[in-house]
Amino acid sequence: MSFDMAKEMAQAEGIEVETVLINEDVAVEDSTYTAGRRGLAGAILVYKIVGARAEEMTSIEELKALGEKVNANVRSMGMALTSCTTPAKGSPTFQLGDDEIEMGVGIHGEPGTKRMKIKGADEIVEDLMQRITMDLPYKAGDEVAVIVNGLGGTPIMELYIVFRKVASYLRKKNIKIFKAYIGEYVTSLDMAGCSISLLKLDQEMKRLLLAPADIPSTIL
Amino acid sequence: MSFDMAKEMAQAEGIEVETVLINEDVAVEDSTYTAGRRGLAGAILVYKIVGARAEEMTSIEELKALGEKVNANVRSMGMALTSCTTPAKGSPTFQLGDDEIEMGVGIHGEPGTKRMKIKGADEIVEDLMQRITMDLPYKAGDEVAVIVNGLGGTPIMELYIVFRKVASYLRKKNIKIFKAYIGEYVTSLDMAGCSISLLKLDQEMKRLLLAPADIPSTIL
Repeated sequence: MSFDMAKEMAQAEGIEVETVLINEDVAVEDSTYTAGRRGLAGAILVYKIVGARAEEMTSIEELKALGEKVNANVRSMGMALTSCTTPAKGSPTFQLGDDEIEMGVGIHGEPGTKRMKIKGADEIVEDLMQRITMDLPYKAGDEVAVIVNGLGGTPIMELYIVFRKVASYLRKKNIKIFKAYIGEYVTSLDMAGCSISLLKLDQEMKRLLLAPADIPSTIL
Repeated sequence: MSFDMAKEMAQAEGIEVETVLINEDVAVEDSTYTAGRRGLAGAILVYKIVGARAEEMTSIEELKALGEKVNANVRSMGMALTSCTTPAKGSPTFQLGDDEIEMGVGIHGEPGTKRMKIKGADEIVEDLMQRITMDLPYKAGDEVAVIVNGLGGTPIMELYIVFRKVASYLRKKNIKIFKAYIGEYVTSLDMAGCSISLLKLDQEMKRLLLAPADIPSTIL
């Protein structure tokens, strides 16, 4: 509803607008929280690739088609060790025991699809990677971009432990990593956990993914 | 001891090395954890300014003097809402109640200098800014660089709430912000909290602070 309203408001000002639905989370088919699949950090890859093409002043129809192509080739799934605390609520969105993890969490503090006893990072990643790679599916010979996205409360050091297992999983399947992003791209406030995203690339997406970009982040 | 050993090993390989001690934390004069004052995120400003000058191929003596000048003009102090969990220990370094905060924390998980009941962000920042600005001291007419540094478990949104108060505090004192950095620069793993750093600038430091830089971060 909010996106539709924003679109109508922009159109009323004479701005050309098209909608691209990003819904690459393999954890949820449908739930009380969503209408269909949700979007996770894979959105970043859509923004970067479509943004780079937009800089080349192509038509909005082509940009929409490109956005849909990226979305069709990206899959993600997340997991959390803690809930987050949204400012409006002031308390955790869901409760999780010290020895529990939540698989399939979204990015707005909503709970996941499955709760389980905590496991080692390698086992958790194996589980996520199976769900992600089966879904498209990704095959031997594919080239992919990978995001290991921190949800806000997980040290980058631990994201690299996750990435190590992602890389060894893909190596065994003979899937090549073209570019990897490890850091906090789409956070859920102070949530501890991460999501993994995989984008199957073609020549066009590879070229646009590497386009130079300026970002407003003060990290620079 | 480690730094001295590293220096000796580099010198044995014929590399010119000088030591610059960064000790800009106003919270601790001395403690069982430290020999004298400690360094916090102000180190980032020393790295950037001395690094930019080193690119200009000046002498190591000048670089050492410049590093000491930056350190002499920067002051920092931190606070935490939680401890962090170091991998070797596997449990929090110190215990903090849900309604408590720790003022004057270091960056290696060591406890701070004063524990108090939690307060609003504005009150906490007022307290930190008083300690920091009195120490140099910073005066009306000064131009400064500011770092609001997240310790790992605090959402960037909250760092901006801290920065809002930092900016209004400095405006009242007629101290001008030349450049502000808000984000995670020196973290303590998953610790919730932040530190504030203030660097009093001259023309040379201003020029070098703005020098272009490439960083290995995958955020880019």
